[in-house]
Amino acid sequence: MTDIPFNTPLYEPDLRAAGVPAPWTFGVADKTRFGELDVLGHVNNTAYLRWAENFRINYFKDYAIADYSGEPPRLVLRQVGMDFLKEMKLHEPYVITGRAVSVRRSSFRMEYAIYAGDLRATGHAILVWLTQNGEKTALPDHVRATLVNRDGAEQL
Amino acid sequence: MTDIPFNTPLYEPDLRAAGVPAPWTFGVADKTRFGELDVLGHVNNTAYLRWAENFRINYFKDYAIADYSGEPPRLVLRQVGMDFLKEMKLHEPYVITGRAVSVRRSSFRMEYAIYAGDLRATGHAILVWLTQNGEKTALPDHVRATLVNRDGAEQL
Amino acid sequence: MTDIPFNTPLYEPDLRAAGVPAPWTFGVADKTRFGELDVLGHVNNTAYLRWAENFRINYFKDYAIADYSGEPPRLVLRQVGMDFLKEMKLHEPYVITGRAVSVRRSSFRMEYAIYAGDLRATGHAILVWLTQNGEKTALPDHVRATLVNRDGAEQL
Amino acid sequence: MTDIPFNTPLYEPDLRAAGVPAPWTFGVADKTRFGELDVLGHVNNTAYLRWAENFRINYFKDYAIADYSGEPPRLVLRQVGMDFLKEMKLHEPYVITGRAVSVRRSSFRMEYAIYAGDLRATGHAILVWLTQNGEKTALPDHVRATLVNRDGAEQL
Repeated sequence: MTDIPFNTPLYEPDLRAAGVPAPWTFGVADKTRFGELDVLGHVNNTAYLRWAENFRINYFKDYAIADYSGEPPRLVLRQVGMDFLKEMKLHEPYVITGRAVSVRRSSFRMEYAIYAGDLRATGHAILVWLTQNGEKTALPDHVRATLVNRDGAEQL
Repeated sequence: MTDIPFNTPLYEPDLRAAGVPAPWTFGVADKTRFGELDVLGHVNNTAYLRWAENFRINYFKDYAIADYSGEPPRLVLRQVGMDFLKEMKLHEPYVITGRAVSVRRSSFRMEYAIYAGDLRATGHAILVWLTQNGEKTALPDHVRATLVNRDGAEQL
Repeated sequence: MTDIPFNTPLYEPDLRAAGVPAPWTFGVADKTRFGELDVLGHVNNTAYLRWAENFRINYFKDYAIADYSGEPPRLVLRQVGMDFLKEMKLHEPYVITGRAVSVRRSSFRMEYAIYAGDLRATGHAILVWLTQNGEKTALPDHVRATLVNRDGAEQL
Repeated sequence: MTDIPFNTPLYEPDLRAAGVPAPWTFGVADKTRFGELDVLGHVNNTAYLRWAENFRINYFKDYAIADYSGEPPRLVLRQVGMDFLKEMKLHEPYVITGRAVSVRRSSFRMEYAIYAGDLRATGHAILVWLTQNGEKTALPDHVRATLVNRDGAEQL
C-alpha cells in the first residue's frame, strides 16, 4: 500500500490493488497520525469517525451529492456506528471505503470498511435530507438515482 | 441547568434536578464549546463520541473499574454507536449519562443518553476485557459485581 | 481547586481562591480529559490551544465583544503562541486566565496563563478586527474602551 | 499541486514543484478537511498546530531523530507559535515545510511555513531533550550533527 495516494478519491483498480475487495468501489486512503493515537498507543475511537466524515465529504463531492462550497447542504447525520475489529497503530497506511446500501424517501444508509492489509473496522451512518427549515424532505431525484445506480443501493 | 457542576461525577439527585429521568444514576455535565461546532454551526458528530469517552473515564474511576493511572487497563472498545435526535448549538449545557445494561463473560454493553433540557442523543458502546497479551479474558469478579449491583446490568 | 466551577466565567475572588495571582481577573477552569492526552501520557500541545480558544469565546461574551450567536464577528486570529512550562496529566483541575495587554487601531494582544496549583503554561494571541469583506478595520469604540478600562490594556 | 503525494515525506524537487522556495528541503503535503474547519468556514487555528505535529513526527523519523516506535523519546515541546497570514478553506491542498534553524546544548528551534500556492502561515517550535527522569540533557551527537549538517542549523 505504499504507493497509494492519500486523501484523494480512489476507484476500483486502486482499491483492488490495495486489497479492498468487491463490492467496494470508492475509497480514501491515509496513514495514521500521532495526533490520532491515545495514551494506550492505539488509534482513538473518535479518529475513525473523523475518517468516516472525511470519506463522506469526498464521496458527496465525487457523487455530485453536495460539495460544501456555497450554501451548505441540509444533509445531516441521524446515526453513526463503528465496530473496531483490530487495533491500529502509528504510521499504518489504510483505506476507508464506503457505499450507500439502502435508500428511503428522505434518508439513506451508508456502510464503511477500513482496511490496512486486513480488515480493521466496519461502520455505518444514516443521513437525512432536510429543508432549509430543518424538516425532513424527499431526497432529490438525482441523489436517489446516483445512490441506486452507482452503489446499487436498495430502495426501501 | 445553570448551576450543575461540569466535568464532575453527578449522582441521582443532580441528574433528576437536571431533568435526567430514571433509570439513569450517573452522569457528567458540560457546556458545548466553539471547538466542537462544525461549519454548519452544530456540534459535530465526533464531539458526542468524545463526550462518551470522557463519561466512560469518569464512570470507570467512580465505579472502581479502572482509573487510568499507572498500568493502563486492557479494557478496549469493540463497538460504538450514536443516534442524533436533535441538533446542539453553542453554549448549551448538557448532561451525558450512562449505565451498563448487559454483561457477558469478557465484555459488557453500556448505553448513553445526552440531555439538554430534552433528549438530544442516545448511544452505546461495547467494551472488552483483555489480558496484557491482548487476548479476551473474563471480567474481574469485582467489575462484574459492580455492573450488576450498581447499574442492574443483565447477565447474558 | 476541587470546588471551582468548570467551563464557566470566573472572576477575581474565584481566581484568587484557586491560586491565580493578580493581575488576572477573568478565567475559565476545567479538568484535563483522556482525549487531551497523547501517547506520551501528557496533555497534547493542541489541547492548550483549544483551552485558549474556549477561554476567548467566554471572554468575548463576558466582555460583550462578540457572542457568536447570529452574524459571526469578523474577529480573526493573527498569531498564537504557547510556552509549556510543566507537563500536565490526566484529571488535573486547572484555570486558564487571560487579559488584553495592548491595543492597536485594528488589533489587540491577549496573554494567557494556565495554573494547576503552580503555573503550567503561558501563551498569547493577536486578534484582528475585519470588515465583512475581510479588510482590517478599526476596533469598535466600545471594544477598545472595554479592553482598556477592564483589563488595563495599553494603547499602542 | 494536484499531483503531490499527501502525508508522505517530500524533498527538494517535490517542494520546488509545489512552489515552496529555498531554503526549505523537507515537507509534508495534505488537503484541508471538513473536520478542520470551524463555524466561520476557515481552518481552525488548532488544525495548523496538528499539521506542525504531524510534520515533526515525519521529520523526526526521516532525520533518524526519533521514530515513536518502542520506547518513546524524551523530546518535548517547550514552545509553539503560529502566524496566520491568509485564511485557508475546505479542500485546499497545501505543503507544510520545516527545518531546524538553531541548536543549543539540550534544545533546538524549528521553523515552519505552510504554502497553498502562496504562503498561508509560518510557525515555530522549541524542543527540549530530556532524560528518562525528565531532566534536561545534552542532545545526542548524531541528532546535533543531523540538524547542523542537513538543515544548516546554527549552533548557539
